[in-house]
Amino acid sequence: MEENVTRTLFDKEEIEKEEIELLLEEKRYREIKELFSEAQPQDIAYAIDGMSDKETVLVYRLLPKEMAAEVFVEMDTDQQEALIQSFSDAELSEIVNELYADDVVDIIEEMPANVVKRILRNADSETRRSVNELLKYPEDSAGSIMTTEYVRFEADFTVGEALTRIRRTGVDKETIYTCYVTGENKKLIGYVSAKTLLLAETDDLIGDIMETNVVFVHANDTKEKASNEMLKYDILALPVTDSEERLVGIITIDDAVDVLQEEATEDIEKMTAMLPSDKPYLKTGVWEIWKKRIPWLTLLMISATFTGQIITVFEKDLAALGVVALTAFIPMLMGTGGNAGGQSSVTVIRGLATGELELSDVMRIIWKETRVSVLCAITLAVVGFAKIILIDNLIFRNAVPLDAAAVVCIALAATVVVAKLVGCTLPLLAKVCRLDPAVMASPFITTIVDAISLLIYFRVALLILT
Amino acid sequence: MEENVTRTLFDKEEIEKEEIELLLEEKRYREIKELFSEAQPQDIAYAIDGMSDKETVLVYRLLPKEMAAEVFVEMDTDQQEALIQSFSDAELSEIVNELYADDVVDIIEEMPANVVKRILRNADSETRRSVNELLKYPEDSAGSIMTTEYVRFEADFTVGEALTRIRRTGVDKETIYTCYVTGENKKLIGYVSAKTLLLAETDDLIGDIMETNVVFVHANDTKEKASNEMLKYDILALPVTDSEERLVGIITIDDAVDVLQEEATEDIEKMTAMLPSDKPYLKTGVWEIWKKRIPWLTLLMISATFTGQIITVFEKDLAALGVVALTAFIPMLMGTGGNAGGQSSVTVIRGLATGELELSDVMRIIWKETRVSVLCAITLAVVGFAKIILIDNLIFRNAVPLDAAAVVCIALAATVVVAKLVGCTLPLLAKVCRLDPAVMASPFITTIVDAISLLIYFRVALLILT
Repeated sequence: MEENVTRTLFDKEEIEKEEIELLLEEKRYREIKELFSEAQPQDIAYAIDGMSDKETVLVYRLLPKEMAAEVFVEMDTDQQEALIQSFSDAELSEIVNELYADDVVDIIEEMPANVVKRILRNADSETRRSVNELLKYPEDSAGSIMTTEYVRFEADFTVGEALTRIRRTGVDKETIYTCYVTGENKKLIGYVSAKTLLLAETDDLIGDIMETNVVFVHANDTKEKASNEMLKYDILALPVTDSEERLVGIITIDDAVDVLQEEATEDIEKMTAMLPSDKPYLKTGVWEIWKKRIPWLTLLMISATFTGQIITVFEKDLAALGVVALTAFIPMLMGTGGNAGGQSSVTVIRGLATGELELSDVMRIIWKETRVSVLCAITLAVVGFAKIILIDNLIFRNAVPLDAAAVVCIALAATVVVAKLVGCTLPLLAKVCRLDPAVMASPFITTIVDAISLLIYFRVALLILT
Repeated sequence: MEENVTRTLFDKEEIEKEEIELLLEEKRYREIKELFSEAQPQDIAYAIDGMSDKETVLVYRLLPKEMAAEVFVEMDTDQQEALIQSFSDAELSEIVNELYADDVVDIIEEMPANVVKRILRNADSETRRSVNELLKYPEDSAGSIMTTEYVRFEADFTVGEALTRIRRTGVDKETIYTCYVTGENKKLIGYVSAKTLLLAETDDLIGDIMETNVVFVHANDTKEKASNEMLKYDILALPVTDSEERLVGIITIDDAVDVLQEEATEDIEKMTAMLPSDKPYLKTGVWEIWKKRIPWLTLLMISATFTGQIITVFEKDLAALGVVALTAFIPMLMGTGGNAGGQSSVTVIRGLATGELELSDVMRIIWKETRVSVLCAITLAVVGFAKIILIDNLIFRNAVPLDAAAVVCIALAATVVVAKLVGCTLPLLAKVCRLDPAVMASPFITTIVDAISLLIYFRVALLILT
């Protein structure tokens, strides 16, 4: 039986992609069928990814019937469209009605209008109603990632009746492991887990065994909030209500995890001066990647040319002080300031994203960053001074005067403190102004810190050296 | 009934923290009890976080009995230790045996040796065996996040027998929603979901209805691999086997999500030149934060002083070419190179972390980055040239000669291309050498790109201006 156990998933995909292409070329369809019957839908979708429309249609017909919908959901938009074009109305109807409504919505959102019309025309009335319902919610809302296919009881059901309902309708539900209890007007009043149901007596009343302490979100809350809440409370399905606390859907953990992963990737992209992308890298066109990267690159380049001009002016002024060596330390000062500020800003940004930090923590954050920055500043100043005296002067014989070395290290210490405070406050400020804290990260802060560090350096030099 | 529904979770926490402190001061214990009975364990743990040991012990006694273990798990290590010290052996025994074995292991790993001994002495033999089993696995392995409390069937069970087993033993299992089927020697041969069980006939055989196509990992695989696999295949519980494919435990989705979130935070920290931390920011001491931040700051500072010296030498050489304006563009060149390289490296690092990119994609990545970098290079060079001619020369009257402007823009274009190629290959190289790709991100690459961009600039200047 072992050969049925998918062990080396990674290797298996690799084999399949090439294997299937070969088998397809040689028209060995039976063997493809066999391979498919032992594989996971996700791996099949990966293996046939990138095939031509004709091949896709051909290969799709070789899938075991019960797996077709699952593979379809995992496929690329282009391939999905090719398949829909090749389906008869009856075939399309069959697959659309087998999919969960939230998956149909995801597909519809990527399709041209005529395909959307055809999909809706071939959906049964229940699916169509659910889909239209879900399409109402804005893109980043909890409503947009929920499903309307959940199990609902009333409080006066017995456990026996509840189990019968699960047996009758459960096949079409996205989860049966948490069932929701509603009262008048579909108002959410509690939930029962399948575990509780299984462990209860047949004639127990749902109203007696249900949990009334329900964590839920509103359909208009953000999907990040909903996902973070599921993570925090360790729940597999989160009920979503309208503004009058009537149950309108549920969010399942798999969709929440996707949101959290996408969110982390988006934040990382923003922190690195890219516009966030929602497509996988290998599937994104070169022009599209260019469009995501060039705006910040250009903006930062232009701001850097201004910094460059300021440096030129400063250099003249520094040179007027009679100490040539000072200009050599400008990149180090700006770089260290940028790094120090980046550390603080990213810590705060990530904390805000995971819900670990909140706006109300602002004073604790600033106080902590102040102390950390002073420690870092002292360390760097001491190490920097030692390096100038021991390495630059003794080994390289650069002859940096002691007072110039002092200027560098004092300016360095001041820059680090200021950079860390700017770094931790800007994301909080962004949050207050309802902007995205992630945009406040390294590259943006670097530009501000660059200017500040130059100013500090010049002031300190003037003070000590004249 | 509405007041039972926890709607504004966030606000509620806030109220509770202060409210509980107040109620505690005024000894209004009954009201605390009432508050607790309506709250989520996670919110209670948050509300009592930071209390003195004495208060913690006092408040803990006010918890509803069935909630005590759940709140205990969510608490801070220091508070857990204080509570354990206050427990009688009987109390400790009760709570330890109620916890899941993987949670006991998490607690034990943070406790001093004498507390660990006391915990193990008071655990029943089954818990002790599970805990000792789990403690064997290395820190980052799939085994370290799994639990041994799962439901296991044999293939010749009927559905009726299986349901009876769930009813008998299910209370103590971490999930009953996926049950595993083992053959000879506990070898994993399949799984049955609770959904399948509920929808099947009582006398169906498990062997006939089980799914044999099991996704699983080995106990020694990394926990990141296990978590990514769960995400990819949308599964709620992942079986873990030993090297002979015998079932040794399962990983539940909540633990996998935690791993993925921690992993994202760690990568973000590494990308921003920090050593990763596994403690929440607000609970980490100032010295500890300093220790995480200072190594990279120091290293990068020292490397920047060398870059500074190279610049000084270059400046003299550039000045010898007779074009003073050239030095003003050095920060812009280095900065843009760093940003461009950072974008590419971070894209690759994140792709490797989420499993979206693999080592085998190396040629596709390099080819894509080459084309993107050429597009970015051309855009930046054109914009940069226009900016010099239109803004610097016409408005600021900086009088940068045309050939110098050409030098800047050609060097800029070349730097961007090189930076992007270095940026995308270094993380892949790190992966090949089994190093952490995240360490190869922005700050490290910046240092390399700084040196390269200076070299390019000077070569181009020499070529065109002499």
